[in-house]
Amino acid sequence: MTHPAWDPYVRDCPTRQVLDRIGDRWTVLVIGAVSDGPTRFSEIARRVQGISQKMLTQTLRALESDGLVTRTVHPEIPPRVEYELTDLGHSLRVPLRALEEWATTHIEQILAARSA
Amino acid sequence: MTHPAWDPYVRDCPTRQVLDRIGDRWTVLVIGAVSDGPTRFSEIARRVQGISQKMLTQTLRALESDGLVTRTVHPEIPPRVEYELTDLGHSLRVPLRALEEWATTHIEQILAARSA
Repeated sequence: MTHPAWDPYVRDCPTRQVLDRIGDRWTVLVIGAVSDGPTRFSEIARRVQGISQKMLTQTLRALESDGLVTRTVHPEIPPRVEYELTDLGHSLRVPLRALEEWATTHIEQILAARSA
Repeated sequence: MTHPAWDPYVRDCPTRQVLDRIGDRWTVLVIGAVSDGPTRFSEIARRVQGISQKMLTQTLRALESDGLVTRTVHPEIPPRVEYELTDLGHSLRVPLRALEEWATTHIEQILAARSA
C-alpha cells in the first residue's frame, strides 16, 4: 500500500532521492544489462559500452544497497562474482524499459527540435 | 520508425544524453507539473516544492530546447507567460508517470533495504 505522504512533489520526500537514483543513465543501462539473469562484472562492462570500472562499481553498489540487485560470490578459484536483479529490481525494469524505448523512438524528434 | 543504430548501450549514442535529461529528478517533476495544461512559472514553482528559481528556469529551457514544452508569452501588462507540454512532451509523460508511481510504491522496500 502506498503511504499517503510519499509524494515526490513534496520537498524532502525521500521518493525524490529514489527518482534521482533510478532515472540515472547508468542505472537504467546497468539494470538492463543484468536483466537476463546472473551476469558477471566484465559482461556488464561489455554490454554498457564506455562505462568506467569505477562508475560500474559505484552503480552496482548503489543498486545492491537499494535492494535492486544481488551480488553472489561463487567460491571458485578465482572467485566468480555474479549480479542479478531482485524481484524489486525486476519490477523497476518495466518503467525503465519504457524510458529506454521512449528515448530510442523519439531521439530524432529531439535532435530536430534542438537544431531548430 | 526507430533508426537501427539508436541504442543507449552503445558508447556516444545520443540516446544516452536523452536518458540523462529525461530521467532527471527535476525533469520528471516539472513535466508532471505542466501536464494538466498551460501553467505559469509561479504555479510550477509552487507544485514542485523546493525547486529553486534558477533550476526551474534551466529545466524549462532544456525542455523547450528539446521540443517537450512550449513557452507562450501573452501580450498583457504585465506579460503572462505559460508553459505547456507538446505532443512529444505528452508522450514522455507516460513512462515518467510510471517511474513516479514506481518510486512512491516501492520507497518503503528501498528504505528497508538501505537500513538492512
